[in-house]
Amino acid sequence: MSHAYKDFEPNWLRESFSPTSYRSIFKWGAPDRIKAPKESLYKLLKETFQLTDEAFSDYTEELGLDEVKYELPIRLTTQQLGKFASIVGPDYIRTDCYARLSVAYGKTMYDILRLRHKIVENVPDAVLYPDTKEQIEEIVAYCAEEKIPVYVYGGGSSVTRGVECVKGGISLDMRLRFNKVVAFNEVDQTITVEAGMSGPKLEETLNNAVQNFGAKRAYTCGHFPQSFEHSSVGGWVVTRGAGQNSTYYGCISDIVLAQEYATPIGRIKTDTYPRKAAGPDLNQIMMGSEGTFGVLTHVTLKIFRHMPETVCRYSFMFRNWETAQSAAREMMQCEAGHPSVFRLSDPEETRIMLRLYGVDETPLMRLFQSRGFKEGEMCLYLGFTNGEKGFSKNCAHMMKKIAKQYGGVSLTGYVTKSWEKGRFDDPYLRDTLQDFGVVIDTMECSVNWSNMSRVHAEVRAFCKSRPNTICMTHMSHVYPQGANLYWIFITQCRDPEEFKAYHAGILSAIQKSGASMSHHHGIGKMFAPWLEGSLGRREYAVFKALKAYFDPDNIMNPGGTLGLDLPEEEKKFLREDIK
Amino acid sequence: MSHAYKDFEPNWLRESFSPTSYRSIFKWGAPDRIKAPKESLYKLLKETFQLTDEAFSDYTEELGLDEVKYELPIRLTTQQLGKFASIVGPDYIRTDCYARLSVAYGKTMYDILRLRHKIVENVPDAVLYPDTKEQIEEIVAYCAEEKIPVYVYGGGSSVTRGVECVKGGISLDMRLRFNKVVAFNEVDQTITVEAGMSGPKLEETLNNAVQNFGAKRAYTCGHFPQSFEHSSVGGWVVTRGAGQNSTYYGCISDIVLAQEYATPIGRIKTDTYPRKAAGPDLNQIMMGSEGTFGVLTHVTLKIFRHMPETVCRYSFMFRNWETAQSAAREMMQCEAGHPSVFRLSDPEETRIMLRLYGVDETPLMRLFQSRGFKEGEMCLYLGFTNGEKGFSKNCAHMMKKIAKQYGGVSLTGYVTKSWEKGRFDDPYLRDTLQDFGVVIDTMECSVNWSNMSRVHAEVRAFCKSRPNTICMTHMSHVYPQGANLYWIFITQCRDPEEFKAYHAGILSAIQKSGASMSHHHGIGKMFAPWLEGSLGRREYAVFKALKAYFDPDNIMNPGGTLGLDLPEEEKKFLREDIK
Repeated sequence: MSHAYKDFEPNWLRESFSPTSYRSIFKWGAPDRIKAPKESLYKLLKETFQLTDEAFSDYTEELGLDEVKYELPIRLTTQQLGKFASIVGPDYIRTDCYARLSVAYGKTMYDILRLRHKIVENVPDAVLYPDTKEQIEEIVAYCAEEKIPVYVYGGGSSVTRGVECVKGGISLDMRLRFNKVVAFNEVDQTITVEAGMSGPKLEETLNNAVQNFGAKRAYTCGHFPQSFEHSSVGGWVVTRGAGQNSTYYGCISDIVLAQEYATPIGRIKTDTYPRKAAGPDLNQIMMGSEGTFGVLTHVTLKIFRHMPETVCRYSFMFRNWETAQSAAREMMQCEAGHPSVFRLSDPEETRIMLRLYGVDETPLMRLFQSRGFKEGEMCLYLGFTNGEKGFSKNCAHMMKKIAKQYGGVSLTGYVTKSWEKGRFDDPYLRDTLQDFGVVIDTMECSVNWSNMSRVHAEVRAFCKSRPNTICMTHMSHVYPQGANLYWIFITQCRDPEEFKAYHAGILSAIQKSGASMSHHHGIGKMFAPWLEGSLGRREYAVFKALKAYFDPDNIMNPGGTLGLDLPEEEKKFLREDIK
Repeated sequence: MSHAYKDFEPNWLRESFSPTSYRSIFKWGAPDRIKAPKESLYKLLKETFQLTDEAFSDYTEELGLDEVKYELPIRLTTQQLGKFASIVGPDYIRTDCYARLSVAYGKTMYDILRLRHKIVENVPDAVLYPDTKEQIEEIVAYCAEEKIPVYVYGGGSSVTRGVECVKGGISLDMRLRFNKVVAFNEVDQTITVEAGMSGPKLEETLNNAVQNFGAKRAYTCGHFPQSFEHSSVGGWVVTRGAGQNSTYYGCISDIVLAQEYATPIGRIKTDTYPRKAAGPDLNQIMMGSEGTFGVLTHVTLKIFRHMPETVCRYSFMFRNWETAQSAAREMMQCEAGHPSVFRLSDPEETRIMLRLYGVDETPLMRLFQSRGFKEGEMCLYLGFTNGEKGFSKNCAHMMKKIAKQYGGVSLTGYVTKSWEKGRFDDPYLRDTLQDFGVVIDTMECSVNWSNMSRVHAEVRAFCKSRPNTICMTHMSHVYPQGANLYWIFITQCRDPEEFKAYHAGILSAIQKSGASMSHHHGIGKMFAPWLEGSLGRREYAVFKALKAYFDPDNIMNPGGTLGLDLPEEEKKFLREDIK
């Protein structure tokens, strides 16, 4: 991707790099895809960080172009390695430095900063590339016997240190072979896949169901997280993810119909009934276990009709955050069905989006001004609807009607279309900017409507307490009872530990203001120290009881995931009353 | 309620009875409400059972008019009784025969048959009427210390032996005092209530939210099980119930936002965030626990706008069960939003409904015949939509359009209205008919679309294997992936054990045909022997691990609930492969 800069084009790293370099591991997504900021964003960053073009002439951060090389002993015995080779086949086990590191980290900013600095702390002893459910069951059973830690690598887009192999052992890289369709059932509108199936492959498979399965029509999976292109179905499920269209299609925990796991105590399989009243919901017990109970093997998902022709797009500008929030709440409580994408930006995000889209120099800006809207107060809302034609149309009609009732100025569907173009692209920016010491990262949480203003204000205040920090907030994944609040912050930072401390501060601010720890990123090892303090001791101990049942020897994703094996002194309790 | 019979009016029991009689306990609902069958139903029954009017002149079954009296020792000590009295107040503990029996049974047919025959097997030693969450917490903590069994009585409409006090101890009767509103939050659209709140009181409270809470508008709870008038919020939640409008509003497991329990290990409280990605879902672990983990105290429910003016009603006649099923599936998969009530009757239920409504002697019948529809093949479908005006209208429009595509003949909204009139009334029939040895009972399960015909045929075949048995089936609580199938069977039976065996046979047929044990009635003690065999040994052991954590001494609803303390030899395994 090339951008024409009018005055000065920074020295963005555009050349290709070794496929076995550190950069090849920490870089987002496809190796040959690079995204540089638009000139408007570049100017904003220079302003924010009080930098000159000079600062963007030479890289100020490690680029990670070196070949991966480190000395970490393999602690598995020859016999153990032989056993694994006999299960997956000798071509599908690797113990070289590159393979081990390639699955050791996700895309948590802390991981990326460590990898740039060649800080290699935790890698598996061997990487296995399983082909079938039965192989995975055999691997887990053997690891249970031998007490070998088991990690799983799906899409590798974790932002919670979810996949980090803290205790060595093996990591199952699901991408290569464990990514097939197991069953397609058009009558029940379901598809069963292996957990390593990637998002794009699933969606393509469903979009082409007529050709692939002789189906009557095309389908969609309905699940499009920002990490879509580099995420796997298994990752969606075990972390309780949500896609950008979740307001209509539901979060993954609504979309999953059945699951199958290979656990240390054997196979755990749930059934595919649409609903049951037969004790606690086993599906909802397994989802969110983040690899600590067992390895997810097969997943049955609900699928939806692929009807891109019924999409109705719209966008609005609201006077301020309070008015916009009220409109958003009415949209979700009016019972006109739920729109699909629903994104409401706060004043800072709006200001930056207007600049990025160049709106600040157009007649549109004068229209806002004529209505008395002020930069720094205005809020941009965009969205679209899905579903059957009449449903989609009526839903869009109601969203527009409500927006107008709350004084929103219509910006047509153009803004939404612009957003759609870049919806899976933004993470590519991270690498380019970081070469110059600029970090972009995100945090998110779930909030009730009645607490929305407080959470927004308090978390934002913390983010901005770091000098020269951009903090953009938006609301998405919206419900009649509340919504997800999502922060994108941009700051200058090079030191992994300094970043980690700032990140922890944001998480604390989120919790202190009365929001959930995460709406859809999950907990992993990064947020784990806070989990018990967030849920309460007795409530959290339920997870421990489940862990003790499924994995008594703690071989599944050990080393802090969900805090299940975290020493007491490493846990954080933000509220006294919850101990 | 009085019915004019043209020829002969059976000697239906219409006189009042002692409020401390057995009948006062096993009778459905309000003491003064009695429902006798319409003449058309009476005629049908006579035909089916080959009976003359003579048989309905004298009661052939025990009427249960005697005063409750039995000799079952109270095993609690004076000190224990004193302690309970000190917690709830001396006026709110009872140990008399009537009080003890009044909460010992639900409305399971097996219970009713036993009570008619004065078979009193299991009663609590004392009945407590708690007033506050704190009282319940103190009671449970004390019972944990003293190892006293704890049962809970809410609405008393269990059809699974859910409330039966198999091990004595205490029962908490929630109806009297533990039925208050704790909080109403219009911004978040939620209400928090004590678990003993009855369905009608909740709905009335919400319908009058303007007067009660100064709210901006009226709300509805959206949850209307057939037992609505005699059910409690707590019962809905712990059994994972579903209301007749669940296709639109969701089952209770969708409607619950947060819960609080008093368990032997202390208070368990979930939070109110609209969605989370923070480990397994604790709400979905507690729901379905049926009193075996702890006593549900407070519940926060999502509420919905009360908009009766937007309801759109419709009904159709389809040519046959296969065509009707296909139409039903298309209705749920077309993504036009979900209708609220959705009821599709199979040919036998349709035939009987036509007779009951007297349609079989009208010109309408000739219309069906002119289309080539045949009695014994035709299927009646009725429903209505809820929601915002445009949503409701579009949804109804699509349901009608699809019905017509599948050859359905429109019967207007009249049939739906007739159904609505009697929707909570039918259980009253049970008592009246049983006085003459005729039993009406129901069974239900959850089925995927692709297995619907098989489940319907096989379960129906078993039901009809009992001579002279009416077996009406309908589909309701419908999803894109399948639906609930619901059987109403009418047969002659007097012996509780004979009935129990028949009932067990139906449950076996349901499972063998590949359906779930229950969609919304729950498991209780009645279905419990099959639960482990239905889920699988390893999957079921998850429930045991949870039980061991919450209630290590098995004081919560002990004696077979969910099969958690059932001896191995009492369990049933229908499938070899699941052991």
